[in-house]
Amino acid sequence: MHTEPTTFSAESYFATQPPPPTLQQDVEKVREFILRQQQQGRNVVLVTSGGTTVPLELNVVRFLDNFSAGTRGATSAEYFLKAGYAVIFMHRQFSLQPYSRHYSHSTHPFLDFLDIETPTPTTTATEDSTATTPRRISVTPNEHDALLDVLTAYKKVHALGLLHTLTFVTVDDYLWLLRAVSKEMSALKRRALFYLAAAVSDFFLPRQKLSEHKIQSGKGSLHIEMDQVPKILKPMVDEWTPGGFIVSFKLETEQSLLLPKARQALERYGHQVVIGNDLHRRKFEVVFVSKKPLPSLPPGIQQTKEAVDHAADSSNSFDEVWLRIDLPETLHPGFPVKEIEEDIVLELVKRHGEWVDGSA
Amino acid sequence: MHTEPTTFSAESYFATQPPPPTLQQDVEKVREFILRQQQQGRNVVLVTSGGTTVPLELNVVRFLDNFSAGTRGATSAEYFLKAGYAVIFMHRQFSLQPYSRHYSHSTHPFLDFLDIETPTPTTTATEDSTATTPRRISVTPNEHDALLDVLTAYKKVHALGLLHTLTFVTVDDYLWLLRAVSKEMSALKRRALFYLAAAVSDFFLPRQKLSEHKIQSGKGSLHIEMDQVPKILKPMVDEWTPGGFIVSFKLETEQSLLLPKARQALERYGHQVVIGNDLHRRKFEVVFVSKKPLPSLPPGIQQTKEAVDHAADSSNSFDEVWLRIDLPETLHPGFPVKEIEEDIVLELVKRHGEWVDGSA
Repeated sequence: MHTEPTTFSAESYFATQPPPPTLQQDVEKVREFILRQQQQGRNVVLVTSGGTTVPLELNVVRFLDNFSAGTRGATSAEYFLKAGYAVIFMHRQFSLQPYSRHYSHSTHPFLDFLDIETPTPTTTATEDSTATTPRRISVTPNEHDALLDVLTAYKKVHALGLLHTLTFVTVDDYLWLLRAVSKEMSALKRRALFYLAAAVSDFFLPRQKLSEHKIQSGKGSLHIEMDQVPKILKPMVDEWTPGGFIVSFKLETEQSLLLPKARQALERYGHQVVIGNDLHRRKFEVVFVSKKPLPSLPPGIQQTKEAVDHAADSSNSFDEVWLRIDLPETLHPGFPVKEIEEDIVLELVKRHGEWVDGSA
Repeated sequence: MHTEPTTFSAESYFATQPPPPTLQQDVEKVREFILRQQQQGRNVVLVTSGGTTVPLELNVVRFLDNFSAGTRGATSAEYFLKAGYAVIFMHRQFSLQPYSRHYSHSTHPFLDFLDIETPTPTTTATEDSTATTPRRISVTPNEHDALLDVLTAYKKVHALGLLHTLTFVTVDDYLWLLRAVSKEMSALKRRALFYLAAAVSDFFLPRQKLSEHKIQSGKGSLHIEMDQVPKILKPMVDEWTPGGFIVSFKLETEQSLLLPKARQALERYGHQVVIGNDLHRRKFEVVFVSKKPLPSLPPGIQQTKEAVDHAADSSNSFDEVWLRIDLPETLHPGFPVKEIEEDIVLELVKRHGEWVDGSA
């Protein structure tokens, strides 16, 4: 594996790496979903969620992964649905999903709040017949109402056909799907919102460098050399889905890198919002970074390309809005009083609404 | 990261790598569990399950992982419980678990088989009061009986205290826990069974080589160089838990490597069984590899070290027993008619029973 690293543009990536086998049928279902939403005049958000993998072998035994349970994406998808959006939820296989996320098999297993009602001897002779009632499953009383709320929302969303789920595993699946879905969503013009919360690998192994079988460990140490994943936000903005409102995420472990890296991404790719979050503070603090609105011009006069470039170049041309959730010191120390995704989605729905109106 | 690879023995590994912070309290709970089982004369099996990770950064964003949903381990644990064993289920966080495994959020989500019973208008005037009945959750009729079976087994196992669950994430967590639990299980002598089904990384990054923060991608390609994980089966057999019946697994993608690698492992580590499985055939075919029993000697005469070594050296000293499950061509093509873990566990319970008797 000691070949020279290759630098892939988005174009050369898609020209040389094979698409996932189910891409075509996935895309057709997305197209139908979008068409239905379009007919109802609904806004549609693509939520990406969970981490991507980079397989080290063709017959996958080992892979590089990015840390993400998919909490941000699954939670946000629920709030987007609550706000009336249709949601394409594109997530890592087995990562958290809207609604079922409340009942993780590890932290809140559903088997623990199901009871078996056994027929009990009754006090009145007339009800003797219950003695032959078969055993029946019921929901533990103190969990019943919370589950009823989740279940009601879940059933409503499915009955109305507002949630479409796609799964990916590898970073290749992710890139191919993202491009295809973005192109389909371009039909929605400004009604399309992109909420790119997935934790996407910065590196990958081109197919040409993949070993076919499990790497054997008898040979001392393991050397891996990976190439950079192509930057896809730029072609996404310029080519795949012009008009879409695109929100990306920056996760850092060094707080000081958050703002510079968010600003750099906006400069480079020209999309609408970067949401910055620190790995250890992400449950209660995020920052929305966006370009400052251009100085207002008399109505009817269009912004020139030069004015836009000028504003972008100035060192003071970014808006930073911090969202913070209180951490109560009592009750559940360290746990926020609410889900910060509720506020993130509210803020985005507002901004996206202005974006949609702006094009009217 | 271009330092020389270090070769770690189990001893040097545990002397230089830090233990997980919760190790001590985990071990105390295991000790209590084992003591309770011992008082009841029960056999105890340690089932390890799921893949281990190798974090590439101290503040984990990226990690190397081993492919495993934990199906083999979770399914086997259920059959061991059914066979009367007490089970220590040591699994990767969020991997499949016994009982809840039947209701994966992705393939068989439990929200899909819960109904909301809404009060319906009744036909007789006397039952008018039902109109005010609050909405109530019930289980979809055609899922009810299967869930009742799972729930009944789950509740019984918990009521009797026969299942103890431990979680790991990293290969370091795994190694430290395995050593500590094995040492605790040595109190059970031959009643201890080890079923090492976890997919453990062959490589790791020693703490001294870990980068503190997220690796930045601006610098071209990613180079990773990892050291070999120490071989721990040998000290496990010789020192940690003498008397235990130890079963390890070999997963290969090249069928031709299966038997040679299984035999090699038995020669090197001296444990009881290697179960070999091919990545693509593991749901319906496995092979049990073990040393042939020594030629029988007159009763009262002990096997000498020399006789044992001689038998081990001979090229013909291995037993290979294949377990295969039929793949019906109709109904569900490609799906086995039963879970192969049922047969694997039956075979091991038999062999372990003989092992326990042999020491009596």
